[in-house]
Amino acid sequence: MITLLTDFGTKDEYAGVMKGVILSLHPSARIVDLSHQVPPGDTLQAAWLLAWSWSWFPKGTVHVVVVDPGVGSSRKVLCAEHRGHLFLGPDNGVLSRALEDKRPPSVRWVKNRRYFLRPASRTFHGRDIFAPVAARLAQGLDPKELGPRIASWKRFPKVRVRSGPGRLAGQVIQRDHFGNAVTNISTEDLARGPKRPGRVEIWARGVRVGPLRRSYSEAGKGGPLAIIGSRGLLEIAVREGSAANDLALSVGDRVEVVRGKR
Amino acid sequence: MITLLTDFGTKDEYAGVMKGVILSLHPSARIVDLSHQVPPGDTLQAAWLLAWSWSWFPKGTVHVVVVDPGVGSSRKVLCAEHRGHLFLGPDNGVLSRALEDKRPPSVRWVKNRRYFLRPASRTFHGRDIFAPVAARLAQGLDPKELGPRIASWKRFPKVRVRSGPGRLAGQVIQRDHFGNAVTNISTEDLARGPKRPGRVEIWARGVRVGPLRRSYSEAGKGGPLAIIGSRGLLEIAVREGSAANDLALSVGDRVEVVRGKR
Amino acid sequence: MITLLTDFGTKDEYAGVMKGVILSLHPSARIVDLSHQVPPGDTLQAAWLLAWSWSWFPKGTVHVVVVDPGVGSSRKVLCAEHRGHLFLGPDNGVLSRALEDKRPPSVRWVKNRRYFLRPASRTFHGRDIFAPVAARLAQGLDPKELGPRIASWKRFPKVRVRSGPGRLAGQVIQRDHFGNAVTNISTEDLARGPKRPGRVEIWARGVRVGPLRRSYSEAGKGGPLAIIGSRGLLEIAVREGSAANDLALSVGDRVEVVRGKR
Repeated sequence: MITLLTDFGTKDEYAGVMKGVILSLHPSARIVDLSHQVPPGDTLQAAWLLAWSWSWFPKGTVHVVVVDPGVGSSRKVLCAEHRGHLFLGPDNGVLSRALEDKRPPSVRWVKNRRYFLRPASRTFHGRDIFAPVAARLAQGLDPKELGPRIASWKRFPKVRVRSGPGRLAGQVIQRDHFGNAVTNISTEDLARGPKRPGRVEIWARGVRVGPLRRSYSEAGKGGPLAIIGSRGLLEIAVREGSAANDLALSVGDRVEVVRGKR
Repeated sequence: MITLLTDFGTKDEYAGVMKGVILSLHPSARIVDLSHQVPPGDTLQAAWLLAWSWSWFPKGTVHVVVVDPGVGSSRKVLCAEHRGHLFLGPDNGVLSRALEDKRPPSVRWVKNRRYFLRPASRTFHGRDIFAPVAARLAQGLDPKELGPRIASWKRFPKVRVRSGPGRLAGQVIQRDHFGNAVTNISTEDLARGPKRPGRVEIWARGVRVGPLRRSYSEAGKGGPLAIIGSRGLLEIAVREGSAANDLALSVGDRVEVVRGKR
Repeated sequence: MITLLTDFGTKDEYAGVMKGVILSLHPSARIVDLSHQVPPGDTLQAAWLLAWSWSWFPKGTVHVVVVDPGVGSSRKVLCAEHRGHLFLGPDNGVLSRALEDKRPPSVRWVKNRRYFLRPASRTFHGRDIFAPVAARLAQGLDPKELGPRIASWKRFPKVRVRSGPGRLAGQVIQRDHFGNAVTNISTEDLARGPKRPGRVEIWARGVRVGPLRRSYSEAGKGGPLAIIGSRGLLEIAVREGSAANDLALSVGDRVEVVRGKR
């Protein structure tokens, strides 16, 4: 099984051609699109999407990320093994959120050109490098064949949740299709935070959102609410609306969890 | 075989994660996307799309609809058996157009939590309930295992075509990607209606569209036309243009079929 | 294996229904979406996309193109055999760029209605003609069964690159998702052209872009560059930007390769 996560969009032939290359080498490969709608070159968004997706797939899946503004430069290609999954992507941070874990991943520099298409272009490594290498990995190729283990690769810095007395402060890290603003405040943060004892209120960009809700239906239509979303992270939503638009929430905006009144 | 119809869009990981869950449980499942572009929460549009799609798939297909603004509330999850197909969706009307039929469907309330992921979230039943249950149904699980048959579930009211002497009146029910305005007037309505004898004219929102055409090419470039579309329903189109835009047609707008001059 | 290239978009059920028909007839078919985002009726863009895609798939693949503004008119349906691949599409030019080759393709007029759905609509040949015929071809049906060979079919005229002393002149033929402007000037043209000896400069719509670069990273952020793209064609790009927007490049705009200073 192979998953694809790119910024190629769906109007050009790029994703289709990657699939053609994979299926030419490995006709029985199962290919699943995670998304081809990552904003062009937005390596951080790709990193979050991968982190929120990979573990829902079967062990042995090869996860391929091609959000690669540095294609053709000297940036490395990485292959990581982690918790029974394989990851393939450029060394620009796109794999780093998925690999943030107590258990350290095994990361290799894909130097062996034997499994690349030849000649490999300098503009479309998705087709010429990532697709054929993914096909071979899905067929059982040992990652050791691809190149040496390395200890240093590009990692996005962690976005820390700060906690004070009766207070947690995090930020918006993603806006989804529904306009929900996903924050970096996790259920673990909340368990450690000011949740117990006392009532908790959530504030986003200085605006009061209200207490933590258990489902969207607890808010009135058009009303804002705070909820633990499907990723185990605090989200700001507007019922039957868009929190991103209605509350003007953007990536980086401050979100606070406060005990009692602020 | 499993089809997916959602309002998840394609920029987030939601549809991909549902596929991961399905393939983790049922690695040889065939998954086909009907659409992930239903407008957020538009249960009626989802209901039409499903009604127009399901019968083109092989018997035994499991059709999953996740357009679910009430996720996490007390709304039921339904599993219907109908004409050899299986349907899974929230009890908010999304299945009801597909099940409008002389032959009554068998509808069950999916109460048995045994096949859900645990813990099931209150925000993403697509992943935690619909995906694993669909995987099990595609593997042959008897729907009886899911819960009891029920007689009452949410149905969208029928949109009736009214007929008077020499006249049929219906309405626009959908605007498609090409800007065609699909109406609820069917070939059966037309056969019963004022079509024979005498020439028929179609009017949309009070504007004369002209006689019923047999193909788009019978109209001039940029000209409006009325035609029986691929769903067996009367459509208003503009050749190499958009009827929805050029004639300002929206869902609910009146469309009439009139014998002779109006 | 079957590839699909259409202008159906992804909000309606059209592409899903085609897959339902294919899988009803040929349950083990592999179906790959090239794109469903061709602009409505844009047969020329479809022709380019197909030309740039087909050869990356395994021999025996059936490539289906449904960009078909003349559906229901008297335009023919074509089936072509070329270099071990099969092509199915309307006779409106969509296959013609893929079949531009020294080796002439074998092209048939699909007249035999035996493999069509019955009754075939006059508005959705994708479902009623292309899908079932593609399924049968993928199962091994001999194209001879479909109809007679023909010698004349609609071909888009070649877009020639003109060369003068120390100069090549071509044009923009496509704008991609990243805003790169793809030209019709190929590596072969450049090898024959003013590349050697002396430095070459590229001009787009009268604006100097600079020398030919080997990778995007050779330009400054936000700066324009000329590069051989993944199709073996000269492209104008803007690093971390959009050449189409920033340089206002459209299909048909003149691009020149000039030895030395202009």
